[in-house]
Amino acid sequence: MPHRLRFTVAYDGATFAGWQSQLNGNTIQDRLEAAFASITRSPARVHGAGRTDAGVHALGQVAHVDIPSTSISAAKWPEAVNTALPPTIRVSSCRYVSDNFHARFSARGKLYRYRIWNAPVLPPFEVGRAWHQHAPLDFDAMREQAQLFVGTHDFAGFAANRGRPETDTVRTIDRVKTGRRGECITMEFSGNGFLYKMVRLMVGALVRHGRGRAPAGEIAERLAAPEKFHARSRFVAPADGLYLVRVRY
Amino acid sequence: MPHRLRFTVAYDGATFAGWQSQLNGNTIQDRLEAAFASITRSPARVHGAGRTDAGVHALGQVAHVDIPSTSISAAKWPEAVNTALPPTIRVSSCRYVSDNFHARFSARGKLYRYRIWNAPVLPPFEVGRAWHQHAPLDFDAMREQAQLFVGTHDFAGFAANRGRPETDTVRTIDRVKTGRRGECITMEFSGNGFLYKMVRLMVGALVRHGRGRAPAGEIAERLAAPEKFHARSRFVAPADGLYLVRVRY
Repeated sequence: MPHRLRFTVAYDGATFAGWQSQLNGNTIQDRLEAAFASITRSPARVHGAGRTDAGVHALGQVAHVDIPSTSISAAKWPEAVNTALPPTIRVSSCRYVSDNFHARFSARGKLYRYRIWNAPVLPPFEVGRAWHQHAPLDFDAMREQAQLFVGTHDFAGFAANRGRPETDTVRTIDRVKTGRRGECITMEFSGNGFLYKMVRLMVGALVRHGRGRAPAGEIAERLAAPEKFHARSRFVAPADGLYLVRVRY
Repeated sequence: MPHRLRFTVAYDGATFAGWQSQLNGNTIQDRLEAAFASITRSPARVHGAGRTDAGVHALGQVAHVDIPSTSISAAKWPEAVNTALPPTIRVSSCRYVSDNFHARFSARGKLYRYRIWNAPVLPPFEVGRAWHQHAPLDFDAMREQAQLFVGTHDFAGFAANRGRPETDTVRTIDRVKTGRRGECITMEFSGNGFLYKMVRLMVGALVRHGRGRAPAGEIAERLAAPEKFHARSRFVAPADGLYLVRVRY
């Protein structure tokens, strides 16, 4: 009987084709599965809490994998698996859990952070790690509008179509925290779940406000009557600035 | 008559083969020369204050280039040249200067910073940007030893051989500043000039002390009698953690 290992994983998404397994193999899931398989010498299937897109980063993604034996203690796993991974993927805090635990289905919520670099020039060390906005943004307007997302809403107006429309588009955001430090604006979204590209669409809408280009009331209206906005073009923030910070269970 | 343009340039050294021009062309100098040449439509020769090695970063390298005309104002140059550069090289603060100015020969001093990540795991976002030290370092010992470098010394015991030995190996370090913030140790060296790999050799010696592996008095002895240490193996800190912060004129 296999043993379920739960772990936390951080990665710099810039050099990978996202989380989810692909034929070319250059995804976080593929790299993790290959690393576990090389150590256990048996096929490994890794399940993550969130299937982050190409270029999206993680500070605290959570995942699980079934291991044939417990010959490697939970405390020894991080070092063992990190040796078999590229340095831009790092596993930490491993522990054996019951079969009831599922990284994706047991998750009760997530915290995402988005970083915007608001200055004429993007520093070389921020390439791929923040969204560059040349012109000054109206941070106060963005901070105020951001609070509109808090609560339980139908977020269909902030969801990208992944082939077929999602059936249940109601989600609860319990907290949005905005901050500015020097040239860097951060926005944190804590919620029970997020639709496809939802954070990047919310950030896109906020930046339109920060640029003074959004009609007043646009976000409120899109939350109140999402069906009116399905067909409209959307402004999606790039993957570069997005970080999965934490998963709540 | 050409016009001399002085500028500041920052770069993430991880993806380049160092500053100095090479046949393959993937150096900072080559990229800058190609960018200026593409705009002025005439060959450009760029002179930098410091010829940083492969993997070494710069926050404020200073360089100059001779431009056939002043049809582009100094204020417009950063945007113009950045468009022709990879995003991991960014030019700022351009200004036209007299022909007496030479980025390298007019420099009166430099400030280098070195970053060490002292924790069991190197975070994915620090790959190529810090020297990873797994085991806890004795920071107090390092801080104390670091002050030995301050002053005017013969630094031959902290110089790598670049083909032929340098003739004048006396340099003055006017300040060494050490700091620790969480898992990151930083060391700043301000001086009138640095020999080849001098900062990385000083950091290597300090880390040997931090690990408790250096005989007491090793740094003092190497400064006092450098000729005794020429032939000995040296412990060089990797390029990853080194940043040229500022050039003083």
